Amino acid sequence: MHEFAVWAPKAKRMTLKLGEQLLPMEGPNDHGWWCTVCMEARCGDDYAYLIDDDPTPYPDPRSLWQPYGVHGVSRLYDHRLFPWTDQRWQGPPLFGAVLYELHIGTFTKEGTFDSAIEKLDHLVELGITHVEIMPVAESPGNHGWGYDGVALSAVTNKYGGPDGLKRFVDACHNKGLAVILDVVYNHFGPTGNYTHKFGPYLTEKHKTPWGDGVNFEDTGSDEVRRFFCDNAIMWLLEYHIDGLRLDAVHELTDRSAIHFMEQLSAEVETVGAMLGRKLVLIAESDLNDPKVVRPREAGGYGMDAQWSDDFHHALFTLLHSESGGYYDDFGSFSYLGKALKEMFVFDGNYSIYRARSHGRPIDGLSAHHFIGFIQNHDQVGNRATGERLEHIVGLDAAKVALGMVLTAPFIPMLFMGEEFAASTPFLYFADHEDEQMAKLVFEGRKNEFSAFGFNEAEQIPDPEKPETFEASKLNWDEVHEGRHAEMLDWTKKLLHLRRHSLSLNDGDLSHVLIDCHEEERWLTMQRGKMLVVLNLGEKLTRVKTPGQYVLALASKPEVAVAPGEVGMPPMSFAVFSAEGRERVS
Amino acid sequence: MHEFAVWAPKAKRMTLKLGEQLLPMEGPNDHGWWCTVCMEARCGDDYAYLIDDDPTPYPDPRSLWQPYGVHGVSRLYDHRLFPWTDQRWQGPPLFGAVLYELHIGTFTKEGTFDSAIEKLDHLVELGITHVEIMPVAESPGNHGWGYDGVALSAVTNKYGGPDGLKRFVDACHNKGLAVILDVVYNHFGPTGNYTHKFGPYLTEKHKTPWGDGVNFEDTGSDEVRRFFCDNAIMWLLEYHIDGLRLDAVHELTDRSAIHFMEQLSAEVETVGAMLGRKLVLIAESDLNDPKVVRPREAGGYGMDAQWSDDFHHALFTLLHSESGGYYDDFGSFSYLGKALKEMFVFDGNYSIYRARSHGRPIDGLSAHHFIGFIQNHDQVGNRATGERLEHIVGLDAAKVALGMVLTAPFIPMLFMGEEFAASTPFLYFADHEDEQMAKLVFEGRKNEFSAFGFNEAEQIPDPEKPETFEASKLNWDEVHEGRHAEMLDWTKKLLHLRRHSLSLNDGDLSHVLIDCHEEERWLTMQRGKMLVVLNLGEKLTRVKTPGQYVLALASKPEVAVAPGEVGMPPMSFAVFSAEGRERVS
Repeated sequence: MHEFAVWAPKAKRMTLKLGEQLLPMEGPNDHGWWCTVCMEARCGDDYAYLIDDDPTPYPDPRSLWQPYGVHGVSRLYDHRLFPWTDQRWQGPPLFGAVLYELHIGTFTKEGTFDSAIEKLDHLVELGITHVEIMPVAESPGNHGWGYDGVALSAVTNKYGGPDGLKRFVDACHNKGLAVILDVVYNHFGPTGNYTHKFGPYLTEKHKTPWGDGVNFEDTGSDEVRRFFCDNAIMWLLEYHIDGLRLDAVHELTDRSAIHFMEQLSAEVETVGAMLGRKLVLIAESDLNDPKVVRPREAGGYGMDAQWSDDFHHALFTLLHSESGGYYDDFGSFSYLGKALKEMFVFDGNYSIYRARSHGRPIDGLSAHHFIGFIQNHDQVGNRATGERLEHIVGLDAAKVALGMVLTAPFIPMLFMGEEFAASTPFLYFADHEDEQMAKLVFEGRKNEFSAFGFNEAEQIPDPEKPETFEASKLNWDEVHEGRHAEMLDWTKKLLHLRRHSLSLNDGDLSHVLIDCHEEERWLTMQRGKMLVVLNLGEKLTRVKTPGQYVLALASKPEVAVAPGEVGMPPMSFAVFSAEGRERVS
Repeated sequence: MHEFAVWAPKAKRMTLKLGEQLLPMEGPNDHGWWCTVCMEARCGDDYAYLIDDDPTPYPDPRSLWQPYGVHGVSRLYDHRLFPWTDQRWQGPPLFGAVLYELHIGTFTKEGTFDSAIEKLDHLVELGITHVEIMPVAESPGNHGWGYDGVALSAVTNKYGGPDGLKRFVDACHNKGLAVILDVVYNHFGPTGNYTHKFGPYLTEKHKTPWGDGVNFEDTGSDEVRRFFCDNAIMWLLEYHIDGLRLDAVHELTDRSAIHFMEQLSAEVETVGAMLGRKLVLIAESDLNDPKVVRPREAGGYGMDAQWSDDFHHALFTLLHSESGGYYDDFGSFSYLGKALKEMFVFDGNYSIYRARSHGRPIDGLSAHHFIGFIQNHDQVGNRATGERLEHIVGLDAAKVALGMVLTAPFIPMLFMGEEFAASTPFLYFADHEDEQMAKLVFEGRKNEFSAFGFNEAEQIPDPEKPETFEASKLNWDEVHEGRHAEMLDWTKKLLHLRRHSLSLNDGDLSHVLIDCHEEERWLTMQRGKMLVVLNLGEKLTRVKTPGQYVLALASKPEVAVAPGEVGMPPMSFAVFSAEGRERVS
């Protein structure tokens, strides 16, 4: 038996197609829902909906499984059948997390949830606490980053379908790893989206880079908000996911008295209360607005944390002179210092890139509400040729950069392969199954890169080609060789140091002291008992220290420590500790 | 000497046309401004700007005077020359205000600022504290409500130009009346708007009922926000205006970390600090979001008050059975009770009219942040034939309604003529000077009214005809006659009672006690020592009272008071006071 229900507020007639049977539905009720109960329907049955006189069967917008891809019919899936083994799972808190972003399709050669499970021990040994997986909703074609999802509640068959994701989460939990899932609530992919046939999921009142905005505030928006909230709750309840990363929340427009993010945050708290564990929401936000992570009780949206790109841009522009786009706004040590001490470099000041003032100060919020990184899928993959940091700046600088990330006050995040300076790129790949769309996207990207001064369009790999996808897969054979092994060792040492230091886990930004030397290109960051020194200059630099320090970790053997002074060779990073002065209270 | 400055960030060349001279301008500077200093320019000189190779001279977007109308050249105006006589002016606070909304063009037969001055004694005698004038920015044609303004800093010549407004404000201040000016920051009028020639004042990312939204968050938005903030500051500084009423703030879209309203509120506070008097901002908001009036320090936008239509709709639908549009959401006594006790009837519940949930509770805010009314320019003028309340429901009911408004916890507002039940309508009139636009607007209105069930399109007066404008002018001869005199007397008594009662000036909603009787159609509202009773039923109603009351004011002589009980005839309103128990602490 199954109760089929679908929201189609403008439909005059709705028909359920179950196998080859056509069954009329009852409705619409006051809120635009149609339903019918089928005694003979069973888990595994295929079904679709017919709208009014249109003879085309459309997949269920809330489909849990699309065995034939985004254009095909939906299949009934029973969440109750999976043999979970994580009954006592609680999971580590986000405020002490080290995140690891990965893309299932390229994390391993096989590109599936099951093959990813085999690499979990590597992450545990590294010191990772939270695995963040890029979107897994069903999208067109054989490969893609996941941001083109259209069947938002159906786990893609490319990676192993619904059961595959459950096996992955169950395995993570058994290894002590929490799982964050990247979800896209700001648009539907351009191909295979049939939701507009059913109802006003989008509104013409607001535009996004992908077209009409999602309808969070207009006629019918209650049900659209329910659609996304229910999607979120499904991942948390049925897939045992520990938290969600919300893609580009700056592309949501919602002037309602209760913003969608606030509603979602309240509902997720309720789900967590029922489950007896803390579930988290992380926003990718380009708003530089502390409201996003401020508690709901204080007028905020109540996200647990948000990505902040400012640290990335501030550090990257010091490591590599790049201009164009948002890099025009950065390039000074004082910006890096501000990113470390105040999180937002743009907190009300004028941005050349945006041609307007941007942001506001975070005013006393903990650094643990912010996620920082020097690599992520965008910063690597949205380069013309998908170069990782080490490919651009070399191993010494990559070590220095990761040192900065893993000793900073924010919650650090690594991108898969960063820990061993993977030689493989992470390219932009997408299989639109639509020649016109494929061409549009490729041309769009070429234009985007030319804004960053990259004009060799012929070097940009074609996103649609399977080779582009294949080339992006990590080569795990290289992990224990040469510079890869050196980087891996460095990452482990940094994570070990962070895990065992009270000072490095302190999110109170009033305890951070920054000293910038723009001309000599070095900076110190004091965090309680720890002194972090970064030298990007070409000369050996002597840094006076306030008191007695011992070396905790250095990216180069030439780093030296003497009473009241440390010596930093060119392009080096080190952490010093006021030994005996750090104690657990 | 005059320094001409204009924002035109995309222009390659800007030329000042001063009289018949063409003078090249310097620029653009980093923020897109062009300027030139003219030694020979004098107050009263006409000027315009030429953009690139376009030979058309365009008026200055920041023009202070458009002597030839919206399409003509601008004229230099010197704010320093006006002989102000209001030097010691402070003005009454908004939280104790009684507002009176008026339209200069129809308030008197002559329709000018100067003729309006002659009626100020009437308002003072009535007990009004704040005069709120509908928009005065220059707009096309000879008549209009003012919401089609395009030269937003130029006072329209229709009413007497810049000096006329100054004489009006000066006169108000000398009579003890504060002046609130209605300003429109959500769109420019459809005819005569040349701002788009100069810069990105609008953005395609967001749509309003009038087309593209104002650019508060996109490229170049700093200067657009400056344009509107500077406009606000000009009224306050140069015209001695005491506060602004911001038209339809729900049509602003601003996802910046600092919302435009918050910025404006902070800037207006600064201006007030400099002037040494409190300046106020009132938002017309349809968001039902307490954030609009919450202090900035508590995460709000810091508006001093906002209009709330919910009380109007709740009371109006009880007085007159009307359906269609937003009236479908109202029609019960419990809604009127909720409007009085909680301000927002829609505070998160589902609205049929909007087809979505709407609003959130005001959570402890004072009622003094809300403006209530039973008539205003929209509620009268946006009816098909511009009927005032008394035309629809008769004198008894109009007295009852005004009684409710003037004893309610919110700040009350009257619409010109309401105090004497004026026999003249307030019609929609607009002189677009553009046949196509005129037709579009007229057709649009006819369609709107048909949504409210009004299908006799031929009865709707043509907005463009001078007769429609003329018919809307108040007839002051009738004030002292018959039912007009009766209503005027009633209004004065109510205002006198409110002015002298501590209880009726208490904005703390926890002190309000409502008792609704849906079937018998009566309601009591206890406010401290005052008991307000409203009977809309067709029968005499006996109401038990908690303790000993004396009659303070009644709309009908048959209202009776006995120990522990009062008697209310059909369609009546009365206020009772627990005598001797109200004292100034």
